[in-house]
Amino acid sequence: MPTTVQAFAALKAKEALKPFSFERRDPGAHDVAIDIHYCGVCHSDLHQVRDEWGGSRFPMVPGHEIVGKVTAVGSSVKKFKIGDSVGVGCMVDSCQECASCAEGLEQYCEKGMTGTYNSVERDGKTPTQGGYSTKIVVSEKFVLKIDPKLPLDKAAPLLCAGITTYSPLRHWNIGKGSKVAVMGLGGLGHMAVKLAAAMGAEVTVLSSSMKKKEDAIRLGATNYAVGGDETFKKYNRYFDLIINTVSAGLDLNTYLGMVKLNGTMVLLGIPEAPEPVHPFPLIMGRRSLAGSLIGGIKETQEMLDFCAAHNIASDIELIPAQKINEAYERMLKGDVRYRFVIDLASLK
Amino acid sequence: MPTTVQAFAALKAKEALKPFSFERRDPGAHDVAIDIHYCGVCHSDLHQVRDEWGGSRFPMVPGHEIVGKVTAVGSSVKKFKIGDSVGVGCMVDSCQECASCAEGLEQYCEKGMTGTYNSVERDGKTPTQGGYSTKIVVSEKFVLKIDPKLPLDKAAPLLCAGITTYSPLRHWNIGKGSKVAVMGLGGLGHMAVKLAAAMGAEVTVLSSSMKKKEDAIRLGATNYAVGGDETFKKYNRYFDLIINTVSAGLDLNTYLGMVKLNGTMVLLGIPEAPEPVHPFPLIMGRRSLAGSLIGGIKETQEMLDFCAAHNIASDIELIPAQKINEAYERMLKGDVRYRFVIDLASLK
Repeated sequence: MPTTVQAFAALKAKEALKPFSFERRDPGAHDVAIDIHYCGVCHSDLHQVRDEWGGSRFPMVPGHEIVGKVTAVGSSVKKFKIGDSVGVGCMVDSCQECASCAEGLEQYCEKGMTGTYNSVERDGKTPTQGGYSTKIVVSEKFVLKIDPKLPLDKAAPLLCAGITTYSPLRHWNIGKGSKVAVMGLGGLGHMAVKLAAAMGAEVTVLSSSMKKKEDAIRLGATNYAVGGDETFKKYNRYFDLIINTVSAGLDLNTYLGMVKLNGTMVLLGIPEAPEPVHPFPLIMGRRSLAGSLIGGIKETQEMLDFCAAHNIASDIELIPAQKINEAYERMLKGDVRYRFVIDLASLK
Repeated sequence: MPTTVQAFAALKAKEALKPFSFERRDPGAHDVAIDIHYCGVCHSDLHQVRDEWGGSRFPMVPGHEIVGKVTAVGSSVKKFKIGDSVGVGCMVDSCQECASCAEGLEQYCEKGMTGTYNSVERDGKTPTQGGYSTKIVVSEKFVLKIDPKLPLDKAAPLLCAGITTYSPLRHWNIGKGSKVAVMGLGGLGHMAVKLAAAMGAEVTVLSSSMKKKEDAIRLGATNYAVGGDETFKKYNRYFDLIINTVSAGLDLNTYLGMVKLNGTMVLLGIPEAPEPVHPFPLIMGRRSLAGSLIGGIKETQEMLDFCAAHNIASDIELIPAQKINEAYERMLKGDVRYRFVIDLASLK
């Protein structure tokens, strides 16, 4: 029998989220049933609630930074048992057959991954609903183990902000001696700083003001600079990788000048409009402007294990679900250090 | 005693080129004096004559696809002797000290390479003048050997069009089994097709009309397609590398959809204005939009040797220097298959 769960949902685009209840399926043979303890609040939740990327489905229960405890497992489940600390990120399924899935890069599934919310199951009709809810049932393959030494509430944002920054750092071979810049010190940016520093890189935070300098250094940055002519000159051709978490409003061409020969600026945020990119800075330093989307399941587990080994988690502000609309407003103003996390005890 | 040479020069921005004479230095200890037989006509000659990138210096003798025979060598020159077939490309010097130069990537010299024309020598004052002239004197390090089995006139465009396309094919590891698209079948594009095919790649030409289909197949392409919805669908996520030789006017975002996971579109042409680039196609396939500038001296020699080994040279239309203004007009209309080359006998 399906289980009724309590949640917060957007019933229509751009509306405030409201209390909502819906049903989760019984766990099938390969499923894990999870009691959700905490769920992080990602900027993309707001983009989708407001239908800023188009195609949003309502009612929508957002949330893809999910952590909790296993309450039941299907008969074929081998990796998990009742009581385990687990996480679920941005995906709950994929085709499992294409070249991307075969490589463990389910996020780039050629048939499209199944999003944790605002998506439909592989049956083509059942809507998926996310972690602003008390329980979730997910195929074993898309469930991650969380080391008990990580505090569960602070681990929640690792499932999106953590892997979204970890994956490009690994893909572009960041390690000891690398020079990494992080544009924007928010939910993604603060994880990028912690992770890159733990990998041995020299980290420079590029921000719009001096306000977060002390935080940046505490998080692991070596340098902190405000974008502008002096910074562009000082760090000319300096960085192996710029992690750009700022989704709009900056002139990428001037920032690209700070990328070293053969280096890369990787974009993690999706703005509503295209950016004007001049080929000149790309050509003059064989630079790349790239993008990266979360990470595969295998890499997400690797990231969680890396975080446990290095005592890395997110800096969070815990809120009850009832404060979600206020949290969205504050997030838009950058008024959070550095991630809101919903305490699902507030719905139980 | 300096030697007076005959040339064609632009005396002012946007003016027609006219007969001009100027002096070349006597070869110093490390210099090679070259009698220029042929010089290719590159689109960037026209950009600079018309000052479309800004900062052009006049009078300007364009030309950086130079081939000829050695007529004298300085006392310390070891690699060349009188009578050798040689070439000079887009650079005649660099700082020789920075990290880029140390790696043999003089084109990315941190202090700026010395362009073959429209530049100044390392003394900071002597203007450089290019290959639309009868003779040139160049430091041994920037002179390339040309295998006598390559026809000299058809080899001229290898010095820019050849290396500009060879270098990215090598940098992005194109070889047997790779799928390469070439956008635009002009001077650069036709070399990209020949080189990529010789490296073992499957080559697809993406053009604006069907006009050059037969040529493309003859040059080594397997597929030929006109940009449009059907093509974008057919080649969705198909190419490891797109060599984009079209400098403006196409929507890069739709073309990026044809790049495979982890693949790259490399821009080789510099338009006057920035391109609108949406992060979405970059993020959804971990794709890169990159740029590449000619190639280093070592790699240029490697390319020339590769061309000699594979009997590759450019398809050209030989013209006397006196026809250069007409050639520019025809080049602007794409009316050349595929490179004009000036026969410097016309100035002797």
